[in-house]
Amino acid sequence: KMLRRVLCTVLFMGALPSLADVSQGHISVVLLGATGDLAKKYLWQGLFQLYMDQVSSGHSFTFHGAALTALEPGQRLMFDVLKKLACPPDESPNRCAVLKDQFLKLSQYHQLKTAENYTVLNREIEMLLRQEGLKEAGRIFYFSVPPFAYTEIARHINSSCRPPPGAWLRVVLEKPFGHDLESAQQLAAELTSFFREEEMYRVDHYLGKQAVAHILPFRDQNRQFLDPIWNRHHVERVEIVLKETVDAKGRTSFYEQYGVIRDVLQNHLTEALMFLTMELPDNVSRAKEVLQRKLQAFQSLRGLGKNSAVLGQYQAYASQVQEELQKAQDYISTTPTFAGVLIHSDNLRWEGVPFLLISGKALDERVGYVRVLFKNRAYCTQSETLRDAVHSQCKAKQIIFYIGHGALNSPAVLVSRNLFRPVMPEGGWREAVGQSDLQVFGQPLSDYYVYSPVKERDAYSVLISNIYHGRKDFFITTENLLASWGFWTPLLDSISHQPPRLYPGGVENQHLLDFEMVSGEVAFTLAEPVELLNPNRLMPSDYRTIQSKFRHSPLVSAWSEDLISQLASDIEKTASRTVAHSGQFHLALSGGSSPVILFQQLARHHYAFPWKHTHIWLVDERCVPLTDTESNFFSLHNHLLQRVRVPYFNVHPMPVHLNQRLCVEEDRGTELYAKEIMALVANASFDLVLLGMGTDGHTASLFPQSENGLEGAQSVVLTESPVKPHQRMSLSLPLINKARQVFVLVLGKGKHAITTLLSRVGHEPRKWPISGVSPSSGQLVWYVDYEALLG
Amino acid sequence: KMLRRVLCTVLFMGALPSLADVSQGHISVVLLGATGDLAKKYLWQGLFQLYMDQVSSGHSFTFHGAALTALEPGQRLMFDVLKKLACPPDESPNRCAVLKDQFLKLSQYHQLKTAENYTVLNREIEMLLRQEGLKEAGRIFYFSVPPFAYTEIARHINSSCRPPPGAWLRVVLEKPFGHDLESAQQLAAELTSFFREEEMYRVDHYLGKQAVAHILPFRDQNRQFLDPIWNRHHVERVEIVLKETVDAKGRTSFYEQYGVIRDVLQNHLTEALMFLTMELPDNVSRAKEVLQRKLQAFQSLRGLGKNSAVLGQYQAYASQVQEELQKAQDYISTTPTFAGVLIHSDNLRWEGVPFLLISGKALDERVGYVRVLFKNRAYCTQSETLRDAVHSQCKAKQIIFYIGHGALNSPAVLVSRNLFRPVMPEGGWREAVGQSDLQVFGQPLSDYYVYSPVKERDAYSVLISNIYHGRKDFFITTENLLASWGFWTPLLDSISHQPPRLYPGGVENQHLLDFEMVSGEVAFTLAEPVELLNPNRLMPSDYRTIQSKFRHSPLVSAWSEDLISQLASDIEKTASRTVAHSGQFHLALSGGSSPVILFQQLARHHYAFPWKHTHIWLVDERCVPLTDTESNFFSLHNHLLQRVRVPYFNVHPMPVHLNQRLCVEEDRGTELYAKEIMALVANASFDLVLLGMGTDGHTASLFPQSENGLEGAQSVVLTESPVKPHQRMSLSLPLINKARQVFVLVLGKGKHAITTLLSRVGHEPRKWPISGVSPSSGQLVWYVDYEALLG
Repeated sequence: KMLRRVLCTVLFMGALPSLADVSQGHISVVLLGATGDLAKKYLWQGLFQLYMDQVSSGHSFTFHGAALTALEPGQRLMFDVLKKLACPPDESPNRCAVLKDQFLKLSQYHQLKTAENYTVLNREIEMLLRQEGLKEAGRIFYFSVPPFAYTEIARHINSSCRPPPGAWLRVVLEKPFGHDLESAQQLAAELTSFFREEEMYRVDHYLGKQAVAHILPFRDQNRQFLDPIWNRHHVERVEIVLKETVDAKGRTSFYEQYGVIRDVLQNHLTEALMFLTMELPDNVSRAKEVLQRKLQAFQSLRGLGKNSAVLGQYQAYASQVQEELQKAQDYISTTPTFAGVLIHSDNLRWEGVPFLLISGKALDERVGYVRVLFKNRAYCTQSETLRDAVHSQCKAKQIIFYIGHGALNSPAVLVSRNLFRPVMPEGGWREAVGQSDLQVFGQPLSDYYVYSPVKERDAYSVLISNIYHGRKDFFITTENLLASWGFWTPLLDSISHQPPRLYPGGVENQHLLDFEMVSGEVAFTLAEPVELLNPNRLMPSDYRTIQSKFRHSPLVSAWSEDLISQLASDIEKTASRTVAHSGQFHLALSGGSSPVILFQQLARHHYAFPWKHTHIWLVDERCVPLTDTESNFFSLHNHLLQRVRVPYFNVHPMPVHLNQRLCVEEDRGTELYAKEIMALVANASFDLVLLGMGTDGHTASLFPQSENGLEGAQSVVLTESPVKPHQRMSLSLPLINKARQVFVLVLGKGKHAITTLLSRVGHEPRKWPISGVSPSSGQLVWYVDYEALLG
Repeated sequence: KMLRRVLCTVLFMGALPSLADVSQGHISVVLLGATGDLAKKYLWQGLFQLYMDQVSSGHSFTFHGAALTALEPGQRLMFDVLKKLACPPDESPNRCAVLKDQFLKLSQYHQLKTAENYTVLNREIEMLLRQEGLKEAGRIFYFSVPPFAYTEIARHINSSCRPPPGAWLRVVLEKPFGHDLESAQQLAAELTSFFREEEMYRVDHYLGKQAVAHILPFRDQNRQFLDPIWNRHHVERVEIVLKETVDAKGRTSFYEQYGVIRDVLQNHLTEALMFLTMELPDNVSRAKEVLQRKLQAFQSLRGLGKNSAVLGQYQAYASQVQEELQKAQDYISTTPTFAGVLIHSDNLRWEGVPFLLISGKALDERVGYVRVLFKNRAYCTQSETLRDAVHSQCKAKQIIFYIGHGALNSPAVLVSRNLFRPVMPEGGWREAVGQSDLQVFGQPLSDYYVYSPVKERDAYSVLISNIYHGRKDFFITTENLLASWGFWTPLLDSISHQPPRLYPGGVENQHLLDFEMVSGEVAFTLAEPVELLNPNRLMPSDYRTIQSKFRHSPLVSAWSEDLISQLASDIEKTASRTVAHSGQFHLALSGGSSPVILFQQLARHHYAFPWKHTHIWLVDERCVPLTDTESNFFSLHNHLLQRVRVPYFNVHPMPVHLNQRLCVEEDRGTELYAKEIMALVANASFDLVLLGMGTDGHTASLFPQSENGLEGAQSVVLTESPVKPHQRMSLSLPLINKARQVFVLVLGKGKHAITTLLSRVGHEPRKWPISGVSPSSGQLVWYVDYEALLG
């Protein structure tokens, strides 16, 4: 009855839809948490905006606020909010007043607490529709409630509130969507048991920010300009930044569990990053294609290490936490309130381009932006004073998606005038004028083409409209969410006990949070000022690498990470020296897990390594195809060869796979490899052989009591391993002992017993093959970490 | 007698050396061309400076001006110059006046024309020494004469003017030292027949410019700061620049033969480049080590192509040449008066760093500098307005060796304050103050540490002093000279007929000479303005790609560059489609020169190419080792595989090299390859085969009348080529015809005849193997450029 009354009013006003249009069907919007902060601040306003925009779309609407509060007080609270709904400046006040009146009449409050409540709500919706003779188009359930309540509500909706067949269900979920990969998987699994993937709309309100939402359309509409330059040859760096002046006061119970990376980087900034780096689908309005490309972009991201981030915490945070969470005086929080993270993509388009994601609280200004800075590839022959500000290619070239606040104080898209005049959708964005003396990113505003939205819309209005239109590409799919957590969780784990740098807050921060990129990692520029150090803070022990002797040979020992760094740099030194001397460097590498970290270290940090002149040989191989994940070569390929530039001719995998079969003696793989070594390596004397050691004292694939390879003339042998895959190919001990240098890497507690044993025994290769490693005229160095050495 | 008188005066004055000191020996300086421009302007002043500096060194001196002019007028001319010698501001006027008087008395004029004249000169020197009872220390002959006179003079000096054993001879030569590698070799060979290498001092007066001369000492004294940053990870670019405002008027007879590259870049700017890029010797004052390192730096330079340079000519130059050289009205000069050249070094330290060498006449300002710009690797969290000008790492970081003129109008060394405070030699350089509001290279002067020489010396004074001290590292050795010409000559040859861009001169040039780096090459930023076009110049027409039929199959035709782009993007599309459909893409590629451009295009511009899922096969191969530069695989590796990420397992070179021998039938390479294809490619049906075509109608390595491969069951065959290397391995026609797609690429005028012929003949593979390409169930597309199609 109420609805009919409204419809009549609407018809009477003449500006609104005919009954025929209304036949598109009815939409019921249920806002759970209708009296909460988010609802008050944004959601009701967004729903009202939806109503204003779509009232003549042919759909009819009802709006159902819901909460745990009882009917009477809940109703009062909710209508207090509704009465305060604002009319947007771009709407005629008359029309808005009428529509607001209608909106209030179409809205009602429900207490939703018990299963019974949900059944009642469902009945009411059905009754209303029957009474009004309306077809049901769909139902939207907006979860503006804490995540712990999700499962319960989801269960009720699934069992009692599904619309009839033919009508759709859309449930809208608000972050946090978990705390790490595991919890996100769990939450996702629970939700998936109630809803289908296409029914779930996970909100990241950044995707509703007008500047962020325009990244993909901008890339699409400006393909002609961007195609040649949207790549590593032209882009110098990308900065994705959200700086806040406020701190976490009053919210520490949430913040202390999450911190800035989970709160801002994992979701908002990462989504913007994806819009920038993903390959453009042919049609950017096809949600499926967009989501698929986005997922591919996730897969290209290079994994983060603990040195991929710099972390800070404003000084007052500790006392706020102690106060608000009733913690003891000696409670120490390592929750970061500032983070700068360096991300690389292994996609060929972006290889080597630094993507910086930065966010923090208690900073000097409130601003958000996505900034793409292009390389200066020009030389301007005319002196600086004579350069045309607009046309000179020597001025900075940038594209900035300005999210809001800051100097511009509105969303905007900025394109340097020496780049191109962008195509912008008419009606959506218009060229902005004025304020040309303002300095933005090092240049006067007049150096840019500046566009701002014709209608400024808050993120929730945009998102609610997208929910209505079923634009799933503006939301976070389960796959997308898990990909993002999969990317961030290793970093979060590795820094969980790392003390952040303390900063005073605001302009006092000065250069304290400036940071620099060094060899693919980041570090604060300034040394930590002593007066800011938290005296209670536990600092990681500062053991130094120790050098000593083991089995009469040099021993290098340290914590494993430092040890690997030392080893990598020693290998590089040997390589450079050898190449300088003889033009090439023959390096034989072992399989197994310890070398993997070494390979990564070499690939990432040793830019001056003479790869072009290095030959890579295998110390041993498992008798599986080279493309098998168990293959030593496969692991070497994945972790090292793919990332550096060793010429194809210099790579020498062991020929375990000949004539479509594995390690058959007649195929003479061992002879083939021995011949290859003879042909290329002077005196068959490798420049460097890297070995590992097993708990049984094996090395290479030479196992205790092995029939082959411990002595004799053969250089390369087939052997048997006690563990699967049993068949192996290996360099022989006599060949290894011809090397000019042999490094043995031993890591981990599991190796402590054998390490101790070895320190006591002599040359007994049949019992412990490793004890037979003793280069006849070369040098042997042991790299043993503290865990293996000291237990 | 004269000398003794002077020595007495000197002793009488009491400020000058005792006879004991003078026993170090006597030095005779002979200035050939004593009345010429250079002598008047710099050399006499330099010799006077030498005298003032060294009068108390223990050496005694005489100065012999020489020229072709007869004695009387020559003497008059010379003494007119000597009387005008200036006293430097750092010398007391009294002392200077006395020394000038002595200098005049120690100087005399000689006519040197005939062999007889040289004998007389020698006799006079010997006599003088005998009379004064002096031991001879050495003789300096300074050649300030045109190069055509060198050989004659050299012969006379060698035969008549050599000092007695125990005394040294130093001959000082002024550029030009040849016109290209050949002429330089010839001149060097002639000089070498008269003088030993250590006797020759080739002057490049840039090595006497104080800022240039200080590059090496600066690098040496600041090793602690520079060691970590003097490399490709930190240096963004280097600019070595000499801009002039004057033009070539009055000097066109010289200039027209040389041009700006020979006049300035090949010598002055290249020498500065070497000082920057060479590896630092342990001891920078050991000439031999310096010269050796410099030579190594030359060897690391990557070869220049014609697109390594942009060239310009000021508009008035043509009429100046016509007038001064009495050329006809239609005479067109292609001599560049402006050049910008991009240089790369393949030394690992500098890989990828652009070195820009720039010089020109009739520009907007006169200035010379060597500028090292460092990368910005920092993110500054504080907003711009709050950044500390001195300490912020976000400001530009540069080191500038300011040669002179320009805004500073004096030599200087500038180091950004956010880099480091440099160590500068006390006494030599002092910190400069004042003028802090001046903008230099985009920043106020106050952002730099600025040092200027304590005593400003002109280049010739510095060089004459270095000759006296025997510092050969400040001069150009024969090896060094030939290395430089060896580097520049290919570029000079390739551009000798290229019309330079015309520019109006001075500030009118605006952005006309600005240029950009694109994929390792340079190009002017602005399109050539029509009004400045030389009407005689041929411009390429602007045909579009046309699509049509050829031999009943689709034909794509365009100018070669567009054609390659089209082909590359068609290959990418096929690849993406195939990978989306079947997970992998099998691509067989041909050798030869046409595909190289295609490979480069694919490597540089096709970021979304699914390389990870692409298998690379060879269509044919020459029977040479894979590492031979003639190998098809080697070329494919260099131009494509090194630049993209095809997994090692997916790369399938032809096994032409087995058991240390090439293409021996018994080694069964063809069977091996056929088996590999059978094992990996479904139905042995490649997804795409790229073919070329020879002028004889051959394709792959299937030549007319070939016994193998044109028909039959064999998939891979050994064939004979009419040209070297004769032995080849090739896919057979039947195998090629099983492919799902075959693209044939035909480029260039040379292919016009065969293309025309082919359009008329039928299926005759024995005569023209290419005519047998006809995929049984696949598609054939011809990519033929306009030159091949239309002749």
